[in-house]
Amino acid sequence: MSPLLTLTTVLALVSTAVWADPLPSWSDTGAKTRIISFVEQVTDPASDQYVPPSDRIATFDNDGTLWAEQPLYFQLIFAIDVIGEMAREDPSILTTEALRSAAAKDYKAVLAGGEPAILEIMKLSHSGMTVEAFQARVANWIETATHPQIGLRYDQMTYQPMIELLRYLRDEDFKTYIVSGGGIHFMRVFSDKVYGIPSEQVLGTYTETEYSVENGVPTIIKAPAIGFVDDKEGKPLNIERIIGKRPIIAGGNSDGDFAMLQWTTAGTGPRLGLIIHHTDTEREFAYDRDSHIGQLVDGLDQGADLGWLIVDMAKDWSRIYTGAR
Amino acid sequence: MSPLLTLTTVLALVSTAVWADPLPSWSDTGAKTRIISFVEQVTDPASDQYVPPSDRIATFDNDGTLWAEQPLYFQLIFAIDVIGEMAREDPSILTTEALRSAAAKDYKAVLAGGEPAILEIMKLSHSGMTVEAFQARVANWIETATHPQIGLRYDQMTYQPMIELLRYLRDEDFKTYIVSGGGIHFMRVFSDKVYGIPSEQVLGTYTETEYSVENGVPTIIKAPAIGFVDDKEGKPLNIERIIGKRPIIAGGNSDGDFAMLQWTTAGTGPRLGLIIHHTDTEREFAYDRDSHIGQLVDGLDQGADLGWLIVDMAKDWSRIYTGAR
Repeated sequence: MSPLLTLTTVLALVSTAVWADPLPSWSDTGAKTRIISFVEQVTDPASDQYVPPSDRIATFDNDGTLWAEQPLYFQLIFAIDVIGEMAREDPSILTTEALRSAAAKDYKAVLAGGEPAILEIMKLSHSGMTVEAFQARVANWIETATHPQIGLRYDQMTYQPMIELLRYLRDEDFKTYIVSGGGIHFMRVFSDKVYGIPSEQVLGTYTETEYSVENGVPTIIKAPAIGFVDDKEGKPLNIERIIGKRPIIAGGNSDGDFAMLQWTTAGTGPRLGLIIHHTDTEREFAYDRDSHIGQLVDGLDQGADLGWLIVDMAKDWSRIYTGAR
Repeated sequence: MSPLLTLTTVLALVSTAVWADPLPSWSDTGAKTRIISFVEQVTDPASDQYVPPSDRIATFDNDGTLWAEQPLYFQLIFAIDVIGEMAREDPSILTTEALRSAAAKDYKAVLAGGEPAILEIMKLSHSGMTVEAFQARVANWIETATHPQIGLRYDQMTYQPMIELLRYLRDEDFKTYIVSGGGIHFMRVFSDKVYGIPSEQVLGTYTETEYSVENGVPTIIKAPAIGFVDDKEGKPLNIERIIGKRPIIAGGNSDGDFAMLQWTTAGTGPRLGLIIHHTDTEREFAYDRDSHIGQLVDGLDQGADLGWLIVDMAKDWSRIYTGAR
């Protein structure tokens, strides 16, 4: 070997060492060590924990797991904004208390109306148009709207440590999926750009759709009826139905994710269940048992016994939002 | 360049030329030329027809498109075989005419009973067990059962030209999908092995499923109710819902595939619709307008005008089954 080649080799090794941390926004705590050790074991052909690439399925909740969800699910904020826009064009649509609260951006009043109010707002803003028209509206919103408290655009309020985890898993030949209570047509507008997750790997709640042909041109219209709610038991059922394989990693943050983690970690062989615990009042939000959104009781009571990794955002993450340091 | 290197280069080129035909079981007719020309255009970055890999989605029907479907859908033959097995263990299950006909393998009587008879047989054979237990039964059947007329195992009755097409498309960075009226849990047992299509790329009809936990162990059970019928308009709707992208290639053989091809080829940019026309009495089966299975009327009447490629099995395929020359 020539001296020059040796030098190149040494430089290459140094460069590898510099880049070796796949999770730079995770603090050097047990959480990070455990994730990396799991991934190294399942990807090492010499390990008895080895899992072939075709079975390296990782599923993640979205709201509160990959991006923030306070003070309201961002999709509901979008829906409220849409009602406002629609009302400026045609005020006669504001036929109910819930819709009037939405048009006034009165989040408290909307929440006070409970599920019926939220459903009304979701239906009017999410149906009666083609999927393309709906998604054009989402695309415009995600590029312009900003969070009322934090001031960042919503697509900048993704969690940098989770973006790094998704990328790390894909680098290690995992297929990364979103499995969310959020709507598929909403999430798919930005999932590829923001998370590197293509539309065919986005599972979620969906409205019914209708196929119709006019003058030979087929269209798919979003109908008001909800077709499937991808929450709680719906998550493992949707995973089984669409992916057809049991994940080896699942991550969530609320009791809506409990069944998904339960199903995942009950499989034979190595499995990793992750709960993102919102503990950071200063940089994000701190909430769990009593929250109106993202309530977490079962995960805290049973997660540790089930071997799940409870990630403490304040302690385990050195950075929160992708859009801010 | 040394003479040795030159020789190696020449040998490499010769070897490439020998292997250059991606579709050896397609005769040298216009159909083959058109498919290859389409794929070359959409994968050539210099072409104005270029499509990036992430949008190279190809969807194919299964019964009658990727494998045979006469004299009955193979999944129905499986169901009939299961009823026979179940009856040998417990004859008291044969409470109806349809179930007795199934236990006697009397296909004619089963068909004479129409849809209600078929549904009864499907429900009893396809529900009330875990997905794993059901799939173990399918796996055993596919390894042992043989076709009543052709004598081949069912997984040898896949069409060799279509297997080559699937492989060719994947080599050109397409994602290949099954979109079938057949059941997802049935097809996923053999789709990867037989077609190279993993379970997460198998869309189909499904029964409802139920999630339950006993002694901390979660299971997913197949329920009797049909959750979704992946046929006719259901195909584009399911593609939109699960894949979230419009395919650029779709292939089918019956009017159950019409809407999928219509949706696919109505998209902007290059699109290819394929109809497999069963014209080969000698090597396979010849049927279209009046068939009790795989009826093809609209595809023949409108397909050519819509620019679809109508594949003439007798003329365009030099070999039919994967399992026989």
